[in-house]
Amino acid sequence: MSLDTYLLESQAAHLDELKALLRIPSVSTNDAFKADVAACAEFVCGKLRDAGLTAKVYATPKHPIVYGEWLGAPGAPTVLIYGHYDVQPPEPLELWRNPPFEPTIEGGNIVARGATDDKGQMFAHVKAVESLMKTHGKLPVNVKFLIEGEEEVGSPSLDPFIEAHADMLKADVVVVSDTHMYAPGRPSITYGLRGLSYFEMTVRGPSYDLHSGLYGGAVPNPINAIGTMIGKLKDENNRVLIPGFYDGVQELDADERAELNALEYDSAAFCGEVGIPHPVGEKGYGIVERLTVRPTLDFNGIWGGYTGPGAKTVLPSEAHAKFSCRLVPAQDPEDIVRKVVAYLESIKPDGVQLEVRPHHGNIPFVVDRSAPAMKAAFRALERVWGVRPVFTRGGGSIPVVASFKRLLGLDTVLMGFGLEDDRLHSPNEKFAIANYYAGIKASAFMLQELAAEG
Amino acid sequence: MSLDTYLLESQAAHLDELKALLRIPSVSTNDAFKADVAACAEFVCGKLRDAGLTAKVYATPKHPIVYGEWLGAPGAPTVLIYGHYDVQPPEPLELWRNPPFEPTIEGGNIVARGATDDKGQMFAHVKAVESLMKTHGKLPVNVKFLIEGEEEVGSPSLDPFIEAHADMLKADVVVVSDTHMYAPGRPSITYGLRGLSYFEMTVRGPSYDLHSGLYGGAVPNPINAIGTMIGKLKDENNRVLIPGFYDGVQELDADERAELNALEYDSAAFCGEVGIPHPVGEKGYGIVERLTVRPTLDFNGIWGGYTGPGAKTVLPSEAHAKFSCRLVPAQDPEDIVRKVVAYLESIKPDGVQLEVRPHHGNIPFVVDRSAPAMKAAFRALERVWGVRPVFTRGGGSIPVVASFKRLLGLDTVLMGFGLEDDRLHSPNEKFAIANYYAGIKASAFMLQELAAEG
Repeated sequence: MSLDTYLLESQAAHLDELKALLRIPSVSTNDAFKADVAACAEFVCGKLRDAGLTAKVYATPKHPIVYGEWLGAPGAPTVLIYGHYDVQPPEPLELWRNPPFEPTIEGGNIVARGATDDKGQMFAHVKAVESLMKTHGKLPVNVKFLIEGEEEVGSPSLDPFIEAHADMLKADVVVVSDTHMYAPGRPSITYGLRGLSYFEMTVRGPSYDLHSGLYGGAVPNPINAIGTMIGKLKDENNRVLIPGFYDGVQELDADERAELNALEYDSAAFCGEVGIPHPVGEKGYGIVERLTVRPTLDFNGIWGGYTGPGAKTVLPSEAHAKFSCRLVPAQDPEDIVRKVVAYLESIKPDGVQLEVRPHHGNIPFVVDRSAPAMKAAFRALERVWGVRPVFTRGGGSIPVVASFKRLLGLDTVLMGFGLEDDRLHSPNEKFAIANYYAGIKASAFMLQELAAEG
Repeated sequence: MSLDTYLLESQAAHLDELKALLRIPSVSTNDAFKADVAACAEFVCGKLRDAGLTAKVYATPKHPIVYGEWLGAPGAPTVLIYGHYDVQPPEPLELWRNPPFEPTIEGGNIVARGATDDKGQMFAHVKAVESLMKTHGKLPVNVKFLIEGEEEVGSPSLDPFIEAHADMLKADVVVVSDTHMYAPGRPSITYGLRGLSYFEMTVRGPSYDLHSGLYGGAVPNPINAIGTMIGKLKDENNRVLIPGFYDGVQELDADERAELNALEYDSAAFCGEVGIPHPVGEKGYGIVERLTVRPTLDFNGIWGGYTGPGAKTVLPSEAHAKFSCRLVPAQDPEDIVRKVVAYLESIKPDGVQLEVRPHHGNIPFVVDRSAPAMKAAFRALERVWGVRPVFTRGGGSIPVVASFKRLLGLDTVLMGFGLEDDRLHSPNEKFAIANYYAGIKASAFMLQELAAEG
């Protein structure tokens, strides 16, 4: 049976298997789901074995890593396919139309936590390899799978695992599908990603909550203080005011800048989608630049004092916030941490205490668009969708991409099958079923193109 | 028999009667105690009749109001004595040394829920009036009692009751004993209280939570926005920047200012108590001024985005905050609401939506210290304690004081017999027995002094 026919006839089965994967609540951020995360690793391992690979679950200090391989093409290139089976917490639950771990078909989409990030995209590669094995009895290149369960918590076990298994993981290129397409029907390859620094800050005033009438006016208020500090982080042009924040950040050359800004970016559609009146952001840059090649500073959460219904005249003891910077090439997360902490200390209002705790960081990256694997991916995507793929840069981080470069010397091809409005990390996360099927096909074609590329 | 002798000989009986009152668990916040609250109203009504007044229990939608009067001094002033017979819940019960509704004598104190707030202080006035009647057969002035059972739940029935019985409640002055003395042995009169405006604000950015990597840089962040707005509410001298906020606020005259700042206020003890390194607040004013005669703007609560453990790279859809202004004379809560809303609208960052919702407000008040009732109270306290009473101003609000001013046009004399460490609202609430007896005497003397004042 031809690969095309096999893929067509297997669609219902491939969808059912994805649903089974999405039913496992593998929330890596919450220890209450530890057993579910482990069960999910076993599920993925079983699917790699079903596909014809040898596979094994490796325990780590936190959540297991699944590794599988098929090395029956001596002399041919070796592809390391990376993905993750863990998912973001589903909260707030009340905003989901259906329970987050009961995958539901709505229109042409499958809706569930992890549908696009990253279970659906990762699983497309598993089904691609299986389909090639079922129809050809072998693969055109050697294939290794590295599927982790800690991506949403910063992959603490991944680097040590890569270092400890550098020989086993040897390859010519890494392929990752954890990004989105340029647009529906417009496949794309992401050749750059932003990095990340993430912080949690606590501001302390009085040692316990006070009555605002009896004490108001003579004690420092940690919420006023944290707000005052937030207000000093950016100027009115949305430029970050932290000294040295932009050190080393290169302006794009005129060609790349023109190419990025030429992407048919529908500003009205963007604003409509996210529900804002008009685009905002750093003055002097287009939307695409703001989203991909310029650094940011955004607050992710804030809390303190009385947050229940009605009026309580409390003068709170503490206020807390989480915030993060998206970084671009030349910005180093650890250097940014130092600069952020120093600046916050310098603007701390009188009388409060400040504690800043950095979370995980990721370095930013950018890859050469003319590398062989980039070309193979380009042709595979062109064959599946029948249009010229778009080269884009991503605004988020995939820290493992930096790890593969640093620890294994490997470049990564980022070939995403998601769509921009897939609501990853949000309620009602979805994945277009057509893109799931197309992703399976694209993965199979890419392995073939890579064999041809040699 | 002279009043002094009578009061001395009646001490044991007066204490026994207070104990009986304290044994009734009149917890107004908990419907399980509804019958006890009602029984307490009947008890108080009976005591007013025993004292020689005509008295009646008035039903309200929630808990009854007790009203009593003696109007046998035509041409003399009329005093309206306000108090409340309801109490806070006693929980946590395990922290009480004795059951909260079994009044226990410990040292010179009577320990029970409601001892100081407000049964003991309120009942002192009842016993004062009774003692005058028993010894003189009449009162030197006309007296009305208004004793409510909903003070601890925000007095929802009180304003409607006052409005419906404005004629019945007609008087020259209100007397309330529901505050504390300046210090043991140092009686005080509170001649001013701050008012309040309370707000809740919501800042909206994108219509749902977004991934900060994919959208960060091109959408407005409501937490950054709310912080930026908070940062523009006060300058570095802690002066509120809202245009017109200080309109009409009078600087104290030199005498009053000196008098307030001369109160032996232990700044180190204050900072130690609340756990702050040094006093903060509006530049140019002392601690006592900051706490009582200067307006404030303090945030009471803030929340938005991800507030759980770990790092979530969400770009939140909404941020919320509660904040309030303590107001001083000449500031009108409704006018302040208008100015706050207008200013917030004017500083709202680009791209976000703002909603400001005012909660309840209280007007500030200050009473002329040379008014006849103030002088009468001053002399009465001086006669009882043998020292010059202290004039203080309070930083919080007592809403009923505002109600009497607004609905009846009456000023209030706040003459407290409690002590600062009486643990009101806390386990082991107490009232110094000596202050109970002194309070009875002070109340009786004040009625006499008021008659002399004419």
